[in-house]
Amino acid sequence: MTTVPVETFFRSRWVSCPDGVTELDPTRLPAGFRAAGVAIGSKPSGKRDVGVLVCDTDESASTALFTRNAVVGAPVKVSRRAQLHALRGAAVNAGNANVGTGARGIEVAEAMAEAVAAGLGVERTRIGVASTGVIGIQLERDRIVAGVAQAVAALAPGGGGDFSEAILTGDRGPKRACLEVSLASGPVVLSAQCKGAGMISPSFATMLCFVETDVSVDPTTLDRVVREATARSFERITVDGQLSTSDSLFVFASGESGRAVEPGSDDERLFAAALEALLRQLALEIVADGEGATRVARIVVTGPDSAVEPVARAVGNSPLVKCALHGGDPNWGRILQAAGQALVGGSREDALAIDLSIEGVPVVRGGDDLTLAETQSVQLDGAMRAPEIEIELDLAHGDAQAELFFCDLGHEYVSFNSEYTT
Amino acid sequence: MTTVPVETFFRSRWVSCPDGVTELDPTRLPAGFRAAGVAIGSKPSGKRDVGVLVCDTDESASTALFTRNAVVGAPVKVSRRAQLHALRGAAVNAGNANVGTGARGIEVAEAMAEAVAAGLGVERTRIGVASTGVIGIQLERDRIVAGVAQAVAALAPGGGGDFSEAILTGDRGPKRACLEVSLASGPVVLSAQCKGAGMISPSFATMLCFVETDVSVDPTTLDRVVREATARSFERITVDGQLSTSDSLFVFASGESGRAVEPGSDDERLFAAALEALLRQLALEIVADGEGATRVARIVVTGPDSAVEPVARAVGNSPLVKCALHGGDPNWGRILQAAGQALVGGSREDALAIDLSIEGVPVVRGGDDLTLAETQSVQLDGAMRAPEIEIELDLAHGDAQAELFFCDLGHEYVSFNSEYTT
Repeated sequence: MTTVPVETFFRSRWVSCPDGVTELDPTRLPAGFRAAGVAIGSKPSGKRDVGVLVCDTDESASTALFTRNAVVGAPVKVSRRAQLHALRGAAVNAGNANVGTGARGIEVAEAMAEAVAAGLGVERTRIGVASTGVIGIQLERDRIVAGVAQAVAALAPGGGGDFSEAILTGDRGPKRACLEVSLASGPVVLSAQCKGAGMISPSFATMLCFVETDVSVDPTTLDRVVREATARSFERITVDGQLSTSDSLFVFASGESGRAVEPGSDDERLFAAALEALLRQLALEIVADGEGATRVARIVVTGPDSAVEPVARAVGNSPLVKCALHGGDPNWGRILQAAGQALVGGSREDALAIDLSIEGVPVVRGGDDLTLAETQSVQLDGAMRAPEIEIELDLAHGDAQAELFFCDLGHEYVSFNSEYTT
Repeated sequence: MTTVPVETFFRSRWVSCPDGVTELDPTRLPAGFRAAGVAIGSKPSGKRDVGVLVCDTDESASTALFTRNAVVGAPVKVSRRAQLHALRGAAVNAGNANVGTGARGIEVAEAMAEAVAAGLGVERTRIGVASTGVIGIQLERDRIVAGVAQAVAALAPGGGGDFSEAILTGDRGPKRACLEVSLASGPVVLSAQCKGAGMISPSFATMLCFVETDVSVDPTTLDRVVREATARSFERITVDGQLSTSDSLFVFASGESGRAVEPGSDDERLFAAALEALLRQLALEIVADGEGATRVARIVVTGPDSAVEPVARAVGNSPLVKCALHGGDPNWGRILQAAGQALVGGSREDALAIDLSIEGVPVVRGGDDLTLAETQSVQLDGAMRAPEIEIELDLAHGDAQAELFFCDLGHEYVSFNSEYTT
């Protein structure tokens, strides 16, 4: 077992490596899992584009969460009907999202699941399906099914690296980690492979993410822990405010470590903390990889319960705020404007009382500018050029809080999305 | 009186010149008005940056509408407290929005109004104030008041051109028109000067606009006609989804023509039609001038009453749809995705039934792609490169309609907004 320095994965100032967690080789899978990634030519680069992940123990537990978009792809429709608490694997392809493809698209997604199920000798409804890429183009059934079958034939305990590459689309590189977590009962392993760069927003799992662990846990406890970790990670990021049609999170527990996570136990808390840190760092990787992104900001809004979430979203999704962030410009006027937009219909007096600070420098008090000392201006200008920026906005009259991570909007986003075609 | 060809102002396919309307010199003002624009050095270019508009008849009627943002500038706060149905003029400056400037900002805005009121010999509360530009920088009181006084001294019936230039910020050029409207009682004149390019969105008057007419009309009728025209024009546009802190619309009627517009009369209908066409074309000018915009799209959504507005906004404000529009890419998948995002929490079955056509070419039926004939693909690709694109989206299950005009998102928007600083 190779260990790598703890700093490698938990890079963000906003995520700490929990006590008792050690990083392992990020391509490693826990006991009881096999994976593979193969290439069938869907990516112009010729890179791997079809992945399969399986859990080899029949007493496994699983859970899955999907996009809340009212328009979803065939893979989400097929996966939603699967046995989500008893999944044994997933078939994934990158380059074509299989969305807007009608009955034919459903058949193709079912055939992808069937190709994995046949290899494992389980029912088709125990296999999830996930696809990302362009919308509205039919996936060629024979070609994709042959690709999945090829990946099934290549399944190996060491296939996590190939799998993590096969799920990527516009990503700069793989997003993955493998952690050893010291429970009271002994060490367990927790790994994940994730993808996502654009069409990332509001709802929970705005990307694809696959999580594997060798703990033994009942599906209800697993589902609860996953939902809590997701609420503190993938639900708190935005790249472009666009909720995808394809976002899916699949979590599998093989039980192979022989160590059980019992509901309400200390081990559950340790496991949950490790899972949350894992998903939170992966979520931050997605924001940092937002198409063309050069820096990540966190806004923490304090105020009335009804206001903090819409204000955080309005600021994080404002193209004006995001362009200022791109330019390293502490343009707090645009933050006030976006916050005010979210408060339309609310009390105007509340809006007047906004306090705002950027990297700890107070810039607005009671809605009005604070003339900064020269040293503060220099401090602020320097801070705005860092890779991570902290913004605190206090609406007064309330102590609810919402945090949101977002990235800047630069030329690469425009280039990528005006040249990337159906 | 010089007339210009009818085609000059009503350029968009989405606005027709109403019967009985003739274009006049676009810098002309109706009888009873004077205006001026001077330069006090707020614009790096040295162009005119302070404007004053006055109505010289005491029996005038007026109305005004303001942004719904909960954070507004001092000029909006001061104008809201003015005698909005009996205004005699307005003081305007460009380059500094006087927002986030506290009690000092209010004093400066009041002083600007006072400088005009003193020149006319009327109460200060009969003068409106409007400012646009950067947020959070104090306007120098003495300098701006001197500028307003200079403009008051320069007031002239032929000052409409200078005034229309003085109110501009990031605009490519003046947005203005002057129309002669043939009422049953005889001809009247209707003119407007408008500005706006970025921070343009949802709510009604997302920019500055000044409208003058020489009809005689009671303030209640004027207000009603203006609100109806605004609902069909400035409320139907978006550039970047950002509701400004400063948007203001001022409308003045001098009565100097001696022709009255009585409530419920045929003349009211003729006048309202001319006003609506005027504001609708000006609104389209703003979209077409969206920072870096190269084309304008109209989306018309048909469906349930509760869904059509959020779906139109979600599509028109989607950076992915806007980037595709920039690239001339008929990427209908992104339109479906954005529509689906607006339908979160609604019926999934409804979302599945979406019909979509672009420039009359049906591309999606019942939520699924239609394989296009070669001739249709060619037709669609060509249409997407035109300056105006028509998109029709039918959600089924309802016949409510919402239209929204929006522009593309290109590199110039990013450049302008990442380099433009406080």
